Amino acid sequence: MAAFLAATLTDAQRTAWLRLLRTDNVGPATFRQLLNRFGSAEAALDALPDLLKRTGKPIRITSQSAAEDELAGLSHYGARMVATGEPDYPQLLNYIPASPPLLTMVGGANLDWQRTVGIVGARNASSAGIKMTRLLATDLGERGYTIVSGLARGIDTAAHRATLTTGTIAVLAGGFDKIYPDENIPLAHDILDNGGALLTEMPLGWEPRARDFPRRNRLVSGLSLGIVVVEAAKRSGSLITARLALEQNRDVFAVPGSPLDPRAEGGNALIQQGAKLITNAEDIIETLGSADPARSALFDRDWEPDLTPDAPPPSEDDKSRLLSALSSTPVEVDELIRQSGLTVSAMQMLLLELDLAGSIEWSSGQLVALKYQ
Amino acid sequence: MAAFLAATLTDAQRTAWLRLLRTDNVGPATFRQLLNRFGSAEAALDALPDLLKRTGKPIRITSQSAAEDELAGLSHYGARMVATGEPDYPQLLNYIPASPPLLTMVGGANLDWQRTVGIVGARNASSAGIKMTRLLATDLGERGYTIVSGLARGIDTAAHRATLTTGTIAVLAGGFDKIYPDENIPLAHDILDNGGALLTEMPLGWEPRARDFPRRNRLVSGLSLGIVVVEAAKRSGSLITARLALEQNRDVFAVPGSPLDPRAEGGNALIQQGAKLITNAEDIIETLGSADPARSALFDRDWEPDLTPDAPPPSEDDKSRLLSALSSTPVEVDELIRQSGLTVSAMQMLLLELDLAGSIEWSSGQLVALKYQ
Repeated sequence: MAAFLAATLTDAQRTAWLRLLRTDNVGPATFRQLLNRFGSAEAALDALPDLLKRTGKPIRITSQSAAEDELAGLSHYGARMVATGEPDYPQLLNYIPASPPLLTMVGGANLDWQRTVGIVGARNASSAGIKMTRLLATDLGERGYTIVSGLARGIDTAAHRATLTTGTIAVLAGGFDKIYPDENIPLAHDILDNGGALLTEMPLGWEPRARDFPRRNRLVSGLSLGIVVVEAAKRSGSLITARLALEQNRDVFAVPGSPLDPRAEGGNALIQQGAKLITNAEDIIETLGSADPARSALFDRDWEPDLTPDAPPPSEDDKSRLLSALSSTPVEVDELIRQSGLTVSAMQMLLLELDLAGSIEWSSGQLVALKYQ
Repeated sequence: MAAFLAATLTDAQRTAWLRLLRTDNVGPATFRQLLNRFGSAEAALDALPDLLKRTGKPIRITSQSAAEDELAGLSHYGARMVATGEPDYPQLLNYIPASPPLLTMVGGANLDWQRTVGIVGARNASSAGIKMTRLLATDLGERGYTIVSGLARGIDTAAHRATLTTGTIAVLAGGFDKIYPDENIPLAHDILDNGGALLTEMPLGWEPRARDFPRRNRLVSGLSLGIVVVEAAKRSGSLITARLALEQNRDVFAVPGSPLDPRAEGGNALIQQGAKLITNAEDIIETLGSADPARSALFDRDWEPDLTPDAPPPSEDDKSRLLSALSSTPVEVDELIRQSGLTVSAMQMLLLELDLAGSIEWSSGQLVALKYQ
């Protein structure tokens, strides 16, 4: 983890981090593996061409100038790019699987980023759902909690609006200059005007696609001690957020509703699965009172792989043994090691290559599967 | 327990049981203690005058003719009086604290008394609550469950109406000739016309008083494998039924609702306290599938005191030691024995006397307290 605990990156380091992170097929997990393997982003960038030869698939390495342009663009907008380990990086995010190595942030300098509650729910919320959100968010805000949400229509909008003056964080699925939906651009401005924050891991100019929303949702829960689901249909993004929150060891709260109301199905199902039924802010605060960021149950998991630098490169035979052990069903790396008989070092190196080649995908930062091509 | 396992009472025994049970200050618990102490109701009736002398308070022993009149009145109405241990006595009731030694029953000969679900809720139910009740009751009925409720307005009425043809049991708080509320007299007739049952432990002609309803509620839950609370305000009879059901080791299910709806407060609070959130009949059946009347967790508790016949009568000194150990705070008999140093036999005899004198009251059939005079 040493690389991640550096107090502040130099400009050159930040540019190298950005180049590496914006390179094809380098997600948060691969980024960490590369940094651990090569010691720094600069060294990883130097090693990439050789590594890519082994994968056999051409990928584009982001150029120095492209990274510099992105950073310049951000500063032009008054936004900043914060790296994991830096003082400004939201501490709660350090403890989630595949936390973003770099985040773009605007505003929020004086927010409490530690006492946070995420509020999520239906875009087509009922008036009762909107009212409930307003009540919860207002009370939580007055009790000193910062509210995190996704700037979507409905519940998200109500949560942000109710906490403009007490503290609100909007996590975006696209570049922060590509607010979605358009109708919430004024809300985004209101958030910044009141000292709130906009936050994203996507580059400037990035239009959010459908698959970017679940990815964004992991940050909504990851920035929060617990999340509240106010109204959610049976299969909805809010339930994905709830699942991610559980994987991140965060509390999940749900507002109950009549079984005759389809918008209550998700919340009721969550409660049946173990989420806490809440009817007011006090119910949430009671539980979160004990959610100290230092408590071990929440925060002592070590998500970092432990690569061995300078190990000999794995052989083609190793690679075929791994490929025959992999399938489209996600499995744990430990299981793969048992099945394939590979060394830990060879396994990690091969997974890194396959990652860069875009051949595998990770779920929960721990399970690996062949990508459905 | 031997006395309670007799297959069927003779007419003379039934009359003696009724005389003893209808005697002042003889509730279900005292009735059992007397029967255990003296071996039979007849012997207890013979011993009562002497016993009452010791208590110092005059109580009225029900006469032979009064008991015969009540039994004749019942048969005139086509009702029957069933004693615990008799084949017609609802088996699930044998396992609750202070189960009624005698029950008045009309109808219900072909009902399934073992696969039962109680449904309770607000008298001033919302139309959504009524609809929910109808859905749940209908589905449970079609799946072979008999529905138990209290013939009250609102949820109770909807539960009975929905299950007229599949099987429904109405437990009354007064004599079965004193249906409450008046507006449900036609419903009571419909229940009997369709093979359902009316049931009460109160005598013919008894007008239900406020305190008779919680007493009745323990039979609604006691007759049921589990109870469902559909709509309930924060302090309501339905919540009392839920508490009683828990004390009786029965499942408690609650229908959730919006925190903005005051009629959902009770159900939501129950869920927070551990009741199962249910949204349909399937949720209930899944849990009850394993609620076998034979399973030990539910049914192996022994509520019967174990008096020693022919033990020497306790002294006045014993009595003052017990009285100084008692207070208006309910305590367990075992605790009293530890505190007072009395023998089990003396303790039980003294409690019987105090019971008959109307000086103490029992809660949950296990805790005893001085009655607030």
